[in-house]
Amino acid sequence: MEHTYRLVIRCPDRVGIVARVSEFISAHQGWLTEASYHSEPPAEDGQGGWFFMRNEIRADSLSVDINTFRQDFAVLAKDFSMDWFLTDSSRRKRLVILASHASHCLADILYRWHSGELYCEIAAVIANHDNLRGMVEWHGIPFHHVPVDKADKAPHFQAVDQLLQQYQAETVVLARYMQILPAAICQQYEGQLINIHHSFLPSFIGANPYFQAYDRGVKLIGATCHYVTEDLDQGPIIEQDVERISHRHNKADLVRLGKDVEKIVLARGLRYHLEDRIVIHGRKTVIFD
Amino acid sequence: MEHTYRLVIRCPDRVGIVARVSEFISAHQGWLTEASYHSEPPAEDGQGGWFFMRNEIRADSLSVDINTFRQDFAVLAKDFSMDWFLTDSSRRKRLVILASHASHCLADILYRWHSGELYCEIAAVIANHDNLRGMVEWHGIPFHHVPVDKADKAPHFQAVDQLLQQYQAETVVLARYMQILPAAICQQYEGQLINIHHSFLPSFIGANPYFQAYDRGVKLIGATCHYVTEDLDQGPIIEQDVERISHRHNKADLVRLGKDVEKIVLARGLRYHLEDRIVIHGRKTVIFD
Amino acid sequence: MEHTYRLVIRCPDRVGIVARVSEFISAHQGWLTEASYHSEPPAEDGQGGWFFMRNEIRADSLSVDINTFRQDFAVLAKDFSMDWFLTDSSRRKRLVILASHASHCLADILYRWHSGELYCEIAAVIANHDNLRGMVEWHGIPFHHVPVDKADKAPHFQAVDQLLQQYQAETVVLARYMQILPAAICQQYEGQLINIHHSFLPSFIGANPYFQAYDRGVKLIGATCHYVTEDLDQGPIIEQDVERISHRHNKADLVRLGKDVEKIVLARGLRYHLEDRIVIHGRKTVIFD
Amino acid sequence: MEHTYRLVIRCPDRVGIVARVSEFISAHQGWLTEASYHSEPPAEDGQGGWFFMRNEIRADSLSVDINTFRQDFAVLAKDFSMDWFLTDSSRRKRLVILASHASHCLADILYRWHSGELYCEIAAVIANHDNLRGMVEWHGIPFHHVPVDKADKAPHFQAVDQLLQQYQAETVVLARYMQILPAAICQQYEGQLINIHHSFLPSFIGANPYFQAYDRGVKLIGATCHYVTEDLDQGPIIEQDVERISHRHNKADLVRLGKDVEKIVLARGLRYHLEDRIVIHGRKTVIFD
Repeated sequence: MEHTYRLVIRCPDRVGIVARVSEFISAHQGWLTEASYHSEPPAEDGQGGWFFMRNEIRADSLSVDINTFRQDFAVLAKDFSMDWFLTDSSRRKRLVILASHASHCLADILYRWHSGELYCEIAAVIANHDNLRGMVEWHGIPFHHVPVDKADKAPHFQAVDQLLQQYQAETVVLARYMQILPAAICQQYEGQLINIHHSFLPSFIGANPYFQAYDRGVKLIGATCHYVTEDLDQGPIIEQDVERISHRHNKADLVRLGKDVEKIVLARGLRYHLEDRIVIHGRKTVIFD
Repeated sequence: MEHTYRLVIRCPDRVGIVARVSEFISAHQGWLTEASYHSEPPAEDGQGGWFFMRNEIRADSLSVDINTFRQDFAVLAKDFSMDWFLTDSSRRKRLVILASHASHCLADILYRWHSGELYCEIAAVIANHDNLRGMVEWHGIPFHHVPVDKADKAPHFQAVDQLLQQYQAETVVLARYMQILPAAICQQYEGQLINIHHSFLPSFIGANPYFQAYDRGVKLIGATCHYVTEDLDQGPIIEQDVERISHRHNKADLVRLGKDVEKIVLARGLRYHLEDRIVIHGRKTVIFD
Repeated sequence: MEHTYRLVIRCPDRVGIVARVSEFISAHQGWLTEASYHSEPPAEDGQGGWFFMRNEIRADSLSVDINTFRQDFAVLAKDFSMDWFLTDSSRRKRLVILASHASHCLADILYRWHSGELYCEIAAVIANHDNLRGMVEWHGIPFHHVPVDKADKAPHFQAVDQLLQQYQAETVVLARYMQILPAAICQQYEGQLINIHHSFLPSFIGANPYFQAYDRGVKLIGATCHYVTEDLDQGPIIEQDVERISHRHNKADLVRLGKDVEKIVLARGLRYHLEDRIVIHGRKTVIFD
Repeated sequence: MEHTYRLVIRCPDRVGIVARVSEFISAHQGWLTEASYHSEPPAEDGQGGWFFMRNEIRADSLSVDINTFRQDFAVLAKDFSMDWFLTDSSRRKRLVILASHASHCLADILYRWHSGELYCEIAAVIANHDNLRGMVEWHGIPFHHVPVDKADKAPHFQAVDQLLQQYQAETVVLARYMQILPAAICQQYEGQLINIHHSFLPSFIGANPYFQAYDRGVKLIGATCHYVTEDLDQGPIIEQDVERISHRHNKADLVRLGKDVEKIVLARGLRYHLEDRIVIHGRKTVIFD
């Protein structure tokens, strides 16, 4: 993988943004390996008009170090009222994965990480069942079994919260975790908390979506990878996909077929996140794939 | 197209149904060109257990005429408490199409009918706008403009009802008709009234689904072909499909991309219906494709 | 549709291209509604390294007229050894469609044009059968029946060539034309001659691809929209798609199912072309969708 | 999983096959949980006309044991010149997997087996590299490293052949094995030897299909699961699928994206095989999914 810096920007649209930013990069000798732009036109009421940009710059091409580049850019960014960040592609984000007893999404992430396909550090796996310990520990990753007491879930969430802090989690992945996180945790990891929901949202919110799908008689089932907010299954959608089913498939078949969609949708969404390809914009996402 | 008889059956499941039915067909020298079966196991509470069957039999192979075959089969059908029907593939179903001002689904059906791809008779097109008259009449099909008065829709529906009767409609297709039919019409054409809804149901029920989809930030849009019942967008689903979208697509793009999905989903669903490939089973469908 | 100018560029990659071009646009007060970039890294042997860019600029935002803008840009373009063009989105490209007796692709293009979905002028349809005359003329488009004599095809191609000149064709669409055009015509309309091939190229080149697909027992059939070059079915691919089939489908089913894929693939490819979204790069295409 | 017997049949088509077979099953009190039929009409020259059937029968419903059932059926089967087999769903097929150094397909099969999704016994993994040993042995499966000497591959194939015999392999899976097996092994495991090829066959036969795809500029890449015969990449196709790519993807991206298609296509194909859902018919397959 080429060593690059990723400059990701969101700001109100106006003439000259691309010119100023690309001039800036060029003046610092930056060689672009990727450049992506998006402008969202104003709504019918004239409100809005937004501009989004992602530049990937070869690290060895810059005439200054990354800190100088960042400081210099901050001046320009202020002129355009930008939300922005600059990341170093060689720095692995620290992930903590929350799971339950279902293994498919967790195993898929572990495999992709182990084989080098997902570039990150997996600091720990926390699960409310103990059955996945062997698989996790074989990968050399700490596993924490934190049971849930249905009568009082607070101790579980406190323990989870402490572990997230202890491991200095940057990104938290809910790999079929099946618990609804407290608002405080959702807020703390806003924009860094990724869930896979086993339906094509907004259809079949909540529990047992495959059974809901079976009862409704849909002809496709799906999965949705999204950022978690305080509102259940309402956060910004990152990625979705579907799989065809028919009357020949029973509930168990839906669960089985859905697993493959869940795995692929979560893996794609997580990859976009790790490569800083996502700009969250209100309830929606811009994905620079 | 080969001339066949289509025997379609739904009954409580038990041992020996296939044997008895295929014995019966064989005893009448029937040569099967297609044979499809489906059994739905009992629910967890032990209720149910259903059997579905569709046989397509070469017309020239039978040793008796279709009426005799039908009478003979009625005896067997009673033994197994079957819902069943027997149709002649050479007989064209009489369609009436209801439309509004959007042309894409109507034009698509007309083309498929004109080119011989859809085997049916299109008795008439009824629309609450007059803009599609030229296209319909070029095909040699009567066109009726029946406006809707938003303050009082009853006269419109009465006129539609009368035209359906006058044309002896067997199957009614809502090709983006955009009006909610009265319960009485829904009941009268139960199992023969086909709608295309421009979302992946059950997401985005009701008006402006593409705008709802845009606001929710989904990554796929879809369309659903379903039988109409009294409950809006709740009838048995026949066919669904989706198309990938991204942040680059605005609302107009969603409408445009959605048209192609709508056309194809309606065409597939209508074809299944015309070829007697659908068994309605409560709120769901069995599709013998 | 917004009135824009489209600036499309291909040149050897180096530092500063985006900066210079966007500075130029900004200096002329150009408001970008779309901006897309692509860089192709050098091959392993160090050869190449190409840059591609498409900017869509609001026409009413420019401080100069389009001719001045074009003249000014030519200076910059020379510095970077650019292949480039600048088009006006309000100007309809002149299409001539070549067909045979199959109606599906032609009818689909006519419908999309008629309904305003495809922005172009259809100057004429030329076909080697006469059966599609009524459909074409209903749209108010001249239809020319130019038969093919299998023993001597030269007179046919001469007549076609003359008609293309007479109608000042800019873009030529082969809508299942089924004849192999002479090299001279391919060269004359290089990059403007679009074909739909009824297979997923490079599989099943040449005649009867659906029969070839049936005999090979593939599980998906496809279609390919590509620019025509002198080498049969070898030109740069614009768009492809596939449809699932199974053992239940016979050859006639493959032909029928394939039609829907052909129509959609050709429509997408033609749209990219009409909106100047395609950069031909050797044997490949960059599509700024 | 329900305990069933699977009766799979291929024979020349004629009137009365379904009747006789279903009568037979019914007379033995067999309760059908699945019944699938397919008839292939005669070719234009009148040759052929074939019938295919798969019945899944609840084991506990039969009035006789499986051996008696098999003996009784053999009489009927002879009357209709049937190729047929009867399997017990509770008996796990013995697999041996051949691999090289790429881990994705192997890891995927191991996971599906380990989680109970693939019902089989994995007797051993044989690979010409040693890097996957840890992963295989963690699953409790014997791993054999059998290197290939490019100058003389015969010793490698002899060792592989001996191991297949030693482990009494019934089904052999080539999980990106990358070696061309000798004809003798192909013949010995005919109809039991499954390969995953990393292209949408018949495109890009042979080595480096993703690089071939990149150079040709296709817009979709694919994978093909097929039975291996002596002719390279020419055996009966079991399953195929594709994934969309664009100019933004380089060769490494194609390899990465292709892995997910390969995994899913191989898993589906292997599942069909393990559940006796495939009838090989010349160069093609009938898949009763």
